[in-house]
Amino acid sequence: MPDRSLLRPPHPLLLEPIVRRALEEDLGRAGDITSELVIPPERNAAARLVARKPGTIAGLNVAQAAFHLVDPALAFRFEIQDGDEANAGTGLATVEGPARSILSAERVALNFVGHLSGIATVTANLVKAVAGTKARIVCTRKTTPGLRLLEKYAVRCGGGFNHRFGLDDAVLIKDNHIVAAGGIAHAVARARAGLGHMAKIEVEADSLEQLREALQLSVDTVLLDNMAIAELRHAVELSKGRAVLEASGNVALDTVRAVAETGVDYISSGAITHSAPNLDVALDF
Amino acid sequence: MPDRSLLRPPHPLLLEPIVRRALEEDLGRAGDITSELVIPPERNAAARLVARKPGTIAGLNVAQAAFHLVDPALAFRFEIQDGDEANAGTGLATVEGPARSILSAERVALNFVGHLSGIATVTANLVKAVAGTKARIVCTRKTTPGLRLLEKYAVRCGGGFNHRFGLDDAVLIKDNHIVAAGGIAHAVARARAGLGHMAKIEVEADSLEQLREALQLSVDTVLLDNMAIAELRHAVELSKGRAVLEASGNVALDTVRAVAETGVDYISSGAITHSAPNLDVALDF
Amino acid sequence: MPDRSLLRPPHPLLLEPIVRRALEEDLGRAGDITSELVIPPERNAAARLVARKPGTIAGLNVAQAAFHLVDPALAFRFEIQDGDEANAGTGLATVEGPARSILSAERVALNFVGHLSGIATVTANLVKAVAGTKARIVCTRKTTPGLRLLEKYAVRCGGGFNHRFGLDDAVLIKDNHIVAAGGIAHAVARARAGLGHMAKIEVEADSLEQLREALQLSVDTVLLDNMAIAELRHAVELSKGRAVLEASGNVALDTVRAVAETGVDYISSGAITHSAPNLDVALDF
Amino acid sequence: MPDRSLLRPPHPLLLEPIVRRALEEDLGRAGDITSELVIPPERNAAARLVARKPGTIAGLNVAQAAFHLVDPALAFRFEIQDGDEANAGTGLATVEGPARSILSAERVALNFVGHLSGIATVTANLVKAVAGTKARIVCTRKTTPGLRLLEKYAVRCGGGFNHRFGLDDAVLIKDNHIVAAGGIAHAVARARAGLGHMAKIEVEADSLEQLREALQLSVDTVLLDNMAIAELRHAVELSKGRAVLEASGNVALDTVRAVAETGVDYISSGAITHSAPNLDVALDF
Amino acid sequence: MPDRSLLRPPHPLLLEPIVRRALEEDLGRAGDITSELVIPPERNAAARLVARKPGTIAGLNVAQAAFHLVDPALAFRFEIQDGDEANAGTGLATVEGPARSILSAERVALNFVGHLSGIATVTANLVKAVAGTKARIVCTRKTTPGLRLLEKYAVRCGGGFNHRFGLDDAVLIKDNHIVAAGGIAHAVARARAGLGHMAKIEVEADSLEQLREALQLSVDTVLLDNMAIAELRHAVELSKGRAVLEASGNVALDTVRAVAETGVDYISSGAITHSAPNLDVALDF
Amino acid sequence: MPDRSLLRPPHPLLLEPIVRRALEEDLGRAGDITSELVIPPERNAAARLVARKPGTIAGLNVAQAAFHLVDPALAFRFEIQDGDEANAGTGLATVEGPARSILSAERVALNFVGHLSGIATVTANLVKAVAGTKARIVCTRKTTPGLRLLEKYAVRCGGGFNHRFGLDDAVLIKDNHIVAAGGIAHAVARARAGLGHMAKIEVEADSLEQLREALQLSVDTVLLDNMAIAELRHAVELSKGRAVLEASGNVALDTVRAVAETGVDYISSGAITHSAPNLDVALDF
Repeated sequence: MPDRSLLRPPHPLLLEPIVRRALEEDLGRAGDITSELVIPPERNAAARLVARKPGTIAGLNVAQAAFHLVDPALAFRFEIQDGDEANAGTGLATVEGPARSILSAERVALNFVGHLSGIATVTANLVKAVAGTKARIVCTRKTTPGLRLLEKYAVRCGGGFNHRFGLDDAVLIKDNHIVAAGGIAHAVARARAGLGHMAKIEVEADSLEQLREALQLSVDTVLLDNMAIAELRHAVELSKGRAVLEASGNVALDTVRAVAETGVDYISSGAITHSAPNLDVALDF
Repeated sequence: MPDRSLLRPPHPLLLEPIVRRALEEDLGRAGDITSELVIPPERNAAARLVARKPGTIAGLNVAQAAFHLVDPALAFRFEIQDGDEANAGTGLATVEGPARSILSAERVALNFVGHLSGIATVTANLVKAVAGTKARIVCTRKTTPGLRLLEKYAVRCGGGFNHRFGLDDAVLIKDNHIVAAGGIAHAVARARAGLGHMAKIEVEADSLEQLREALQLSVDTVLLDNMAIAELRHAVELSKGRAVLEASGNVALDTVRAVAETGVDYISSGAITHSAPNLDVALDF
Repeated sequence: MPDRSLLRPPHPLLLEPIVRRALEEDLGRAGDITSELVIPPERNAAARLVARKPGTIAGLNVAQAAFHLVDPALAFRFEIQDGDEANAGTGLATVEGPARSILSAERVALNFVGHLSGIATVTANLVKAVAGTKARIVCTRKTTPGLRLLEKYAVRCGGGFNHRFGLDDAVLIKDNHIVAAGGIAHAVARARAGLGHMAKIEVEADSLEQLREALQLSVDTVLLDNMAIAELRHAVELSKGRAVLEASGNVALDTVRAVAETGVDYISSGAITHSAPNLDVALDF
Repeated sequence: MPDRSLLRPPHPLLLEPIVRRALEEDLGRAGDITSELVIPPERNAAARLVARKPGTIAGLNVAQAAFHLVDPALAFRFEIQDGDEANAGTGLATVEGPARSILSAERVALNFVGHLSGIATVTANLVKAVAGTKARIVCTRKTTPGLRLLEKYAVRCGGGFNHRFGLDDAVLIKDNHIVAAGGIAHAVARARAGLGHMAKIEVEADSLEQLREALQLSVDTVLLDNMAIAELRHAVELSKGRAVLEASGNVALDTVRAVAETGVDYISSGAITHSAPNLDVALDF
Repeated sequence: MPDRSLLRPPHPLLLEPIVRRALEEDLGRAGDITSELVIPPERNAAARLVARKPGTIAGLNVAQAAFHLVDPALAFRFEIQDGDEANAGTGLATVEGPARSILSAERVALNFVGHLSGIATVTANLVKAVAGTKARIVCTRKTTPGLRLLEKYAVRCGGGFNHRFGLDDAVLIKDNHIVAAGGIAHAVARARAGLGHMAKIEVEADSLEQLREALQLSVDTVLLDNMAIAELRHAVELSKGRAVLEASGNVALDTVRAVAETGVDYISSGAITHSAPNLDVALDF
Repeated sequence: MPDRSLLRPPHPLLLEPIVRRALEEDLGRAGDITSELVIPPERNAAARLVARKPGTIAGLNVAQAAFHLVDPALAFRFEIQDGDEANAGTGLATVEGPARSILSAERVALNFVGHLSGIATVTANLVKAVAGTKARIVCTRKTTPGLRLLEKYAVRCGGGFNHRFGLDDAVLIKDNHIVAAGGIAHAVARARAGLGHMAKIEVEADSLEQLREALQLSVDTVLLDNMAIAELRHAVELSKGRAVLEASGNVALDTVRAVAETGVDYISSGAITHSAPNLDVALDF
């Protein structure tokens, strides 16, 4: 479980428009016609968000926002916190108030919690697999369109770290940039000439030769792309701590420890955000 | 492969705001600082969207929209169509023009195509598994917040069908509604009293007893939730075609055919939208 | 007066953006310069929404939203409810608080209540005219751009029912679709092939011949367009309850009962939304 | 017919968001499912906007925007211009291109043209009724929420003039302002003290006594509210041209000429915008 | 110091979207990462907005909105009011509550108060310089894009008045319009033919000849552009009060009194909005 | 003049919404009533953007966007480029096409170019003043709300560099953070524990003592706030290149060279964005 005080849940000002859009998508033009026709407005209910499968939880604050946007009169109480692990059957939170409102917000709230907890769970598994090494698990820009803020947060809930939030955060010079720019040295020189002092530069290296070139240029980070374990070990020796080393490429639960044990600093994975299966979470009345 | 003339790709008026938002999320405040610093504006390039793994493709039109929104000067050509199957290595489309623009749009385009093709692929596998039965595979409202339009389309690309797009599309009376309303009969009566003639009514039945009650009320569809195969077979016999029957609950690739062979009309699955792993698609220069 | 528990007032999440846009339209760039210059900020007032002409009321909740968005400190109290009938002089609601705020919101609130009550009143008149028959009055997509949600609600306040909310709600195959598709049978077959199980199909019939064809195809609803009374009666006999029958075309207060007495199920009217005169409602201080 | 060069059609930058919102309202989440399922994408069609009833036309440019937003490939050709009069059967414009696109935009285009032409027609009737007098017909802020720009334009198409576009355009001190401010003189003094030199001041007068007071204060315009014909004539004599005189209150087609002949400068009517019946316009294929 | 009851602070409905956009611009995708990482959530603080340099204050209500949008739990208390003068060291307001929230909103709040107080201060200096004459200082449309509402308010806080808020407020016929229209007389005639009675007409005159022409046409206001002092004096004599006279062109603190003493009614300055240096305001903890 | 290939003009996808909002602010509800009434639609014109005072130009692409958004038929041709210096009288660009459209866009285009060129000019003056030293001039977050993207670009046009674009770009631990966190060491440790590898850490130091502490913690950058020249020189000696040094605090044209000669790496200034006077630019017909 990550240090909860470092999780940085999304600020309400950034979170609410995302949740509002999801609710509007579900309510459509006419709203929740079933609940409004079938359930008397004065009927109250109490319900509980419950994990059906074990996993690491993320997104309870998003669920809270969904319930409150649908009806400020709903009382939402956390039973555990984002970043906590749940077993099958663990209660996550309770919500009480008008039954119609609970049912109108239910699916959106569950869609968020299931999706984000899925990401947190897959991340947490990788984090546990590398425990004891210095390697940190880090996500990429391979996120679901429109949900990057929340998915990056879910990665943190799973104990992972965040790479760039977008194209404007830091410079990452990949193979295609190098080719188009006419070589690593030229690309790095141009980035240095144009950037201010608070943006870092990372260069992708597909070979030890490219790593050497990058190290000579004193870049902040080198992305070691799709290297074999032996090659990664070599890279760590070559680097001698002069650059932060990030290993990437088809990282899986059964291979990640070997990568970590090569001594790299960061292991990045697109799959933790783009292929994490939903965690099964339900709302019990 | 589904009948392509029935796919109904999202109308540009509905698609473009979603793609624009994804691009804004990636460009951030300052834009693609790497490409703009490192690549001369006059440099052109040609690239190809290629499947790295086999699967059913969805979202090429979304990729096209991403490239065109970033730069109307980019030429995008389809090599195959949404709904087609690709092998590892199959070229999906080509894009040509300013190298900067291709690189600025690349990640967003790939995030969409990978995500939607993942959904289409998982759907297509279920559809193939029930081939020869009358059962249709259908998605649910368990979609990624903000992407429902596109995910429903990806399901169609995989040969599946769509259930409700939202809470306002049709009436679906679930167990919690029944409890809060005071019984199935009362709930259905209220829905009939308030609805117009173009909205259908579906009722969830957890037991054959509830199915009988629903059939007596002449509802359009009954959702058979989490029933065993034998129970489903029973339900089909009971119904005698009086209602459309939809089976739901933990549908998986190895169990779906048995469900289909019970004779139900529809099999709904949340997993095809909320837990489909990304299809590995890359942009080769 | 319709069963008030079936009215389904628009959800605040859907209502507020519409009211906010109307207020922004009226406040412009500089706000209510008259009230802000002329009335001291501490001056309070009490005012009453009053019907100047008799009619069926709709939109009091919209007025409430307008006053609250302008100033959360305004106290709004309902004297009657949406769907109720008012005489000339009937008090509808009271609002109390800062005089400036009441005056700044007044026109927008009245524009909504007058417009929606106009629709409710015209609808209620048609509903009363067909009382005792089984025919229901139903609106169309001929609504004022941007106000469909509210106008459909006003129709319900008048005792009417709602047809489709938009092009994506249900399939309605009109004459032009039939021509372009190459016949009714082909059009219906294509709709069935592509649609899920929760969307209904309606077909327009301009003659009894077309009605017969539609009945053979077991469509859900047939739209009998511009048929004479005798022809409608014939259609009801032909149908024998196999399809829901909807009569449309130049429905007026003095002709609607004859249409209803033919035995059709629904009578649709564009005029109740697009040509209803405003109900005269004022704010008395 | 008004001088067409003075009509000032809405600037595309202001018009397009309104039309886009109306199209999104109609397309909903899933788009035009009927046309997309039933009509082959390559099918072309030609259609003609035709007036079914005689009237003054407004909104053809809005219809054009609707067709172009749905499909830039549609060719739209004007047969007459906004502000022209049409007979029953007059062709207004033609549109050619993909049949699906024409059908998807049809209803929104017709809703705009029917609504705005209705307003233009009612206005034109009042304008003709006062022909030969110096009185100008002018609209109010009693417009349909969200459509003020277009409705004010429709009034101009009918030969009328526009009053304030909103609360920030000019100062209009009504009876409630006068009471809250503590008298006309004080209210006008405050407005003068706070306003710049380009905003005009109008004061409502319910009696000749109030008119006298307003004239002494040299306000730009006096609103003569609900005065009888004799009183209006008196007011014109009293004013001697010192203020612009605007008569308001229950202006109707059979009473407006008498009002105009009293010699007032402007006659304002809320009904021309809030109660104009739709002009029947259709799209013939 | 202007009469505070005439200041008309921006209505919250108009103000909040501007402040929200500024906060979103600063928070970016990931929010205030420094405060969220470094400061415990339960840490409270008290801070004070303090002027570092003397000036006229504007925008305290904007700062309040910024703090409240970031965190409704922050308590904001005014120590002085917009329109008041502050010395170096004067406390303007205090804010208390969660330290994180204060720091997250600080820069946006200061950017607004510093910018608007800069405008108020420069305006107040001009206003003082012309004290005792009848001339009023008035701003133009030369405002910072996106901030016109607030900058016009800041001008009022400095004791100035507002000209047009935009192109649709009033007619201002400049030299280029006159040339394109074919002369002043024609331009004014067309404006009169198309405008309603509540919009004023101003004409730019670069020479006394043009002034004479404008006076003959009885326009409301004449803009005397870049005239020398002697010429302005002449213009005032010529006009004899028949039109409001507005002098414009390179108005500076050391020249403005001479302009005012010519007897013109208004002196307009673009510099008070587009070139006012920021007033140094800080937040002391 | 900066290396123009490093300027990175704002991407159209990010630029256009800002320009559109400015145009909407100026057009208001009714549009450019003067031009539309006074100038015939078919009248064409040619105009030239001309500098009235010498300066460094920024924002010609923004002006181009303004003209094109108002009317795609306008032809805009650059005579010089952003980042170039202009003398009084230098032509910057020409625009040709419908006279109405040129006049409708004129003010917004000029407001942008004048504002941004003002910033570029003030920046360029500082850059020239430190020529020959290694110090780079860098802006801050003290920008005009809503215009940060453009103002940061204008700084680059003047030869300056950009600091953080917002609170989420990099960690900047200021005095208040240090106090609230309980010391520099603790604050830096928490930032390191929570941040990924691509974000830099800067710490504010008000004394050499604090600088020493920061250097021991190996932070990337130290902000030397309001230090005297001698103290800055001392700081450079202490640092020995271990951290990037940024000097800030009341940087002015006559003091900046002395600061630069101390050997610091960056000199940051809020005044270049928040207090730069507008550069006088006009549109000559």
